Amino acid sequence: MIIVIKDNQEKKQIENLTNWIKSLGLGIHFSQGEKTAVIGLIGDTSKVDIDLVRSLDIVESVTRIQEPYKNANRKFHPDDTIIDVSGRKFGGKYFQVIAGPCAVESEEQVISIAEAVKEAGAGLLRGGAFKPRTSPYSFQGMKLDGLEILKKAREETGMPIVTEIMSEKYIDAFLDVDVIQVGARNMQNFELLKELGKLKKPILLKRGLANTIEEWLMSAEYIMSGGNMEVILCERGIRTFETYTRNTLDLSAIPLVKEKTHLPVIVDPSHASGLSRLVEPMSLASIGAGADGLMIEVHNNPACALCDGPQAITPEQFLALQRKMDVMLPLVNKIRS
Amino acid sequence: MIIVIKDNQEKKQIENLTNWIKSLGLGIHFSQGEKTAVIGLIGDTSKVDIDLVRSLDIVESVTRIQEPYKNANRKFHPDDTIIDVSGRKFGGKYFQVIAGPCAVESEEQVISIAEAVKEAGAGLLRGGAFKPRTSPYSFQGMKLDGLEILKKAREETGMPIVTEIMSEKYIDAFLDVDVIQVGARNMQNFELLKELGKLKKPILLKRGLANTIEEWLMSAEYIMSGGNMEVILCERGIRTFETYTRNTLDLSAIPLVKEKTHLPVIVDPSHASGLSRLVEPMSLASIGAGADGLMIEVHNNPACALCDGPQAITPEQFLALQRKMDVMLPLVNKIRS
Amino acid sequence: MIIVIKDNQEKKQIENLTNWIKSLGLGIHFSQGEKTAVIGLIGDTSKVDIDLVRSLDIVESVTRIQEPYKNANRKFHPDDTIIDVSGRKFGGKYFQVIAGPCAVESEEQVISIAEAVKEAGAGLLRGGAFKPRTSPYSFQGMKLDGLEILKKAREETGMPIVTEIMSEKYIDAFLDVDVIQVGARNMQNFELLKELGKLKKPILLKRGLANTIEEWLMSAEYIMSGGNMEVILCERGIRTFETYTRNTLDLSAIPLVKEKTHLPVIVDPSHASGLSRLVEPMSLASIGAGADGLMIEVHNNPACALCDGPQAITPEQFLALQRKMDVMLPLVNKIRS
Amino acid sequence: MIIVIKDNQEKKQIENLTNWIKSLGLGIHFSQGEKTAVIGLIGDTSKVDIDLVRSLDIVESVTRIQEPYKNANRKFHPDDTIIDVSGRKFGGKYFQVIAGPCAVESEEQVISIAEAVKEAGAGLLRGGAFKPRTSPYSFQGMKLDGLEILKKAREETGMPIVTEIMSEKYIDAFLDVDVIQVGARNMQNFELLKELGKLKKPILLKRGLANTIEEWLMSAEYIMSGGNMEVILCERGIRTFETYTRNTLDLSAIPLVKEKTHLPVIVDPSHASGLSRLVEPMSLASIGAGADGLMIEVHNNPACALCDGPQAITPEQFLALQRKMDVMLPLVNKIRS
Repeated sequence: MIIVIKDNQEKKQIENLTNWIKSLGLGIHFSQGEKTAVIGLIGDTSKVDIDLVRSLDIVESVTRIQEPYKNANRKFHPDDTIIDVSGRKFGGKYFQVIAGPCAVESEEQVISIAEAVKEAGAGLLRGGAFKPRTSPYSFQGMKLDGLEILKKAREETGMPIVTEIMSEKYIDAFLDVDVIQVGARNMQNFELLKELGKLKKPILLKRGLANTIEEWLMSAEYIMSGGNMEVILCERGIRTFETYTRNTLDLSAIPLVKEKTHLPVIVDPSHASGLSRLVEPMSLASIGAGADGLMIEVHNNPACALCDGPQAITPEQFLALQRKMDVMLPLVNKIRS
Repeated sequence: MIIVIKDNQEKKQIENLTNWIKSLGLGIHFSQGEKTAVIGLIGDTSKVDIDLVRSLDIVESVTRIQEPYKNANRKFHPDDTIIDVSGRKFGGKYFQVIAGPCAVESEEQVISIAEAVKEAGAGLLRGGAFKPRTSPYSFQGMKLDGLEILKKAREETGMPIVTEIMSEKYIDAFLDVDVIQVGARNMQNFELLKELGKLKKPILLKRGLANTIEEWLMSAEYIMSGGNMEVILCERGIRTFETYTRNTLDLSAIPLVKEKTHLPVIVDPSHASGLSRLVEPMSLASIGAGADGLMIEVHNNPACALCDGPQAITPEQFLALQRKMDVMLPLVNKIRS
Repeated sequence: MIIVIKDNQEKKQIENLTNWIKSLGLGIHFSQGEKTAVIGLIGDTSKVDIDLVRSLDIVESVTRIQEPYKNANRKFHPDDTIIDVSGRKFGGKYFQVIAGPCAVESEEQVISIAEAVKEAGAGLLRGGAFKPRTSPYSFQGMKLDGLEILKKAREETGMPIVTEIMSEKYIDAFLDVDVIQVGARNMQNFELLKELGKLKKPILLKRGLANTIEEWLMSAEYIMSGGNMEVILCERGIRTFETYTRNTLDLSAIPLVKEKTHLPVIVDPSHASGLSRLVEPMSLASIGAGADGLMIEVHNNPACALCDGPQAITPEQFLALQRKMDVMLPLVNKIRS
Repeated sequence: MIIVIKDNQEKKQIENLTNWIKSLGLGIHFSQGEKTAVIGLIGDTSKVDIDLVRSLDIVESVTRIQEPYKNANRKFHPDDTIIDVSGRKFGGKYFQVIAGPCAVESEEQVISIAEAVKEAGAGLLRGGAFKPRTSPYSFQGMKLDGLEILKKAREETGMPIVTEIMSEKYIDAFLDVDVIQVGARNMQNFELLKELGKLKKPILLKRGLANTIEEWLMSAEYIMSGGNMEVILCERGIRTFETYTRNTLDLSAIPLVKEKTHLPVIVDPSHASGLSRLVEPMSLASIGAGADGLMIEVHNNPACALCDGPQAITPEQFLALQRKMDVMLPLVNKIRS
């Protein structure tokens, strides 16, 4: 960490600052220019509160050299982490597809979709039992009954299941889930992250709507610092000024995050746009950008009049998309696991 | 709600949509132009999933007429809600100041600041016992011990206390807190909001970093739909592209939110900028914009070398600011309670 | 356009509004609900100032049904526009690559790069003669001399040239340029757009840093309403809160813009990230998203110590990337022209 | 400027970089840690292209110590600049109000409003003769005829006039305007800024919709580096994800910009919200934040049915607002000039 001191500050105040830094167990490299003084901090600065230092009246600017995350940092773990979920691998040379309905609605619905996406080559089954909804008046999901349905679908198809947890109070009910998903709105629900850090179970951590890449990795670090090293990152769109799309899928984040961390990074193209016709182009774009996998909503309900165009694609569209993916994967040196 | 249909759609698909709308118990007003058809929905549309409708292939655009929030909506409750916390009033003609340290560090610290801010005219005492921190390696607060210290300070000074809850698992410990604060990162922690809705206790709901005014009011609605009508809204800055400030304090939100809702709206000027020297101008600006109160960090620790310039102001600066506020309040037709 | 009136407004005020609408030559469809009145406007609403209507005290909300752009609108021109620049085609089934150095530095540099990118299969040569720079102290380009160098490179290689104009006062000097580029910062320099609308020459219109898709299409409309129908749109990244990347490449915009307009849409992956190692993944991602072409910076200066890693890729990297593109193009039904 | 080098880079590449820095006439302070090397640049770094350095493969991060602007920098000009426009002063202890109609529509309209705002205490008259409009189909202003009307109003009332220029080709026509305004969309129209830098005439420079404070000051620097030191900055709202307001007025920018620069900073509260009822609260908020003045739209057209609620306030509302300002100004140590 490098601290630049404002011009013409009192020596006493600079000393106070350097003494405080030393009291944290850090070394100091002090360099006094003509007017500007620069303090270099030597040692593990991950515990230094950068916002506090930045707010000091004598400080002009502060720059981190060392990232504030360690377990998630590729510098300390150069090799890709590969996470194995009952044989379905995430990371490294592997490309993985999670597919299934947005919300669990019935056993029949889930099993029918599960069979279709398995047939088309998906590795894991997704489905929402607990649904985070902006409005208290919207359907909040089938909750524990939904979890049971997912487990039955797993039994029928052999596919591991991925589903979202919304509070640490449900952790016991999720112990039998294969991959626990943390939604965008809970990315900084630190109490939840801490509890997930105590498990030995893959966590799929979605990026928050307005969270930087660094904050995202710090949330992964919360889980990892508790001892659970199996974190799969999932980009799902960020909030910008543009309103034609619901969110802006930040695909430039993919190669950058993969430079910073050894964890696998997948993309959810369904939620960002909210439009099913964008799922195919944004899936291919994600592969081009270097994603380690995709999470795709697939819906199949011929009885429902509304299903001609929801944000989920049909099993037929999913199958066609899978075949296009197969052509693209060699270009980015990826194979199915 | 008004749904505009794309040009030249099949009659069958439009019928499917109108039938689905009717199945929700809503009436229809259909108007067919030369090429474009427009469907007006009649009745309580708060349960209609606007994102689902928007994602349909035949739909060009959807506009809400009725806001999706009811309890929080000024249309249905034209008079300002006034929330009384042991005689300290929020809302209507009243202006209220909450002050205290960022984090609870010791009994001596808290009581000394409490006495100073009370002397300067603050109505309530704030202090963080549980601290939401981006990094798992940062100090996470004194937790339950911190709560005890706040209660002692209340005993000593008679000031009601305001402090942040980070998980519904701590609700029992917070039952004796006067105002429970929900932090920006938990604004859409819906499980927490639901639990707070069951209490009879004022909730201070901070706006999320990247949440719209409508989402903020929907989170208030979560609490209110559970039966707890005492919600105080708190603007604390939103995330934008500007990096000179930590966040951008959205003061234009104040008069707009007050048009939309009858709930009191206060401002936290300390966190948005992260700079103590901006607290005074942004406090006066908040009053100009029509805020119902302020939450201000005050720090007092002569022993600490770093305290010459943290993001909190000193008790002396707080006192001077209070006197300036007194001059301004009549301009905006506000009085201290 | 649909105008929703606030509840309980005076009849006189609503009449004033409807009379004003009629005075613009538009028809009215008035629908009075229990409390809310809705006014539908019939006819060509592109001249109605939506911001003015929105600001009226009696108006709750306004929704456009008809887009405010006509010439650029796919509704009125369903077929893809194909722009032919000396045989290099943009749009429809064609995929086109523009490549060259960021700034024109010398004849030798430009010709050497031009030959290399032509060899690798690029269709057009790019190069900046006039450089928009945030700082007045930065190199502002070789200007008119730079234009001459580009023309010489065209003579040598036969490649049409693409270069940026920064003011309408230079239009005469640009009459011999094959494609005139409007930079992101000038996307809403309306005086410049009007002058370009008078030419018969393809215009490459970059999206502004913080401009919506609708504003981008309105700027195309400025050019087209002057009579120049040959506009190529170019996405180059938008400004968001994320600071790890210089800008966020908005690839979800590609399929959406192509729904809204018949104009070709290409992507500039070099400027968004500012990092040469992101050029390849973001190029492949752009193709996946459905782009009609790419504009890529290529640099070749073995004498320059700094050239081990600028934001431009080397001719060798460009060649390798071109071969990967060739594999991908059939997947998105595109061919080279 | 401080450059942090990535771990384990080749010595040769670091040497290339340091040699290049030296070739720019700068000194080097090199510090090699255990793994990380840090290079401090000594001298005038305003000509160093920070984006180029940041893009180098061996570079981890770059931090400016010295701001890239000089003439606009308070460090080199600690005293407030006071700009005198025919006796109306901007900056220092002075508070100035510019008022008038959005667009010039007729001589009668402009003179009538001019007289009203003069009576209420406004110092300068504003009015748009050239109007930047998103749509080519919207009214583009009375142009040169509008300028003549403004000059007549100046003759009648003695008020200096402020009006917007949209292209350098009109500079001759603006030589007799008292303050030339550069609109938000032209903040980075560098060719225009350069021409304005050659004049001896105050320039009112609005902040771009999505421009950082640093970019804004760099645009002021463009004008000042040409020799014209009279720049008045004007905050008018930035683009964020929030859609309830048209833009988000960034009042936290005011005290920060005034720390960074000696130039006067005023606020335009009318355009940010697009709602006349927000003009009063946001004006008072701007004064609280420390603005050196306000630019306010005032409209007066009893014959127009639409004028019950445009984004401009009436002369009566303006008068009432002026009286509230008078009460507030002593609080922020400001006087009218």
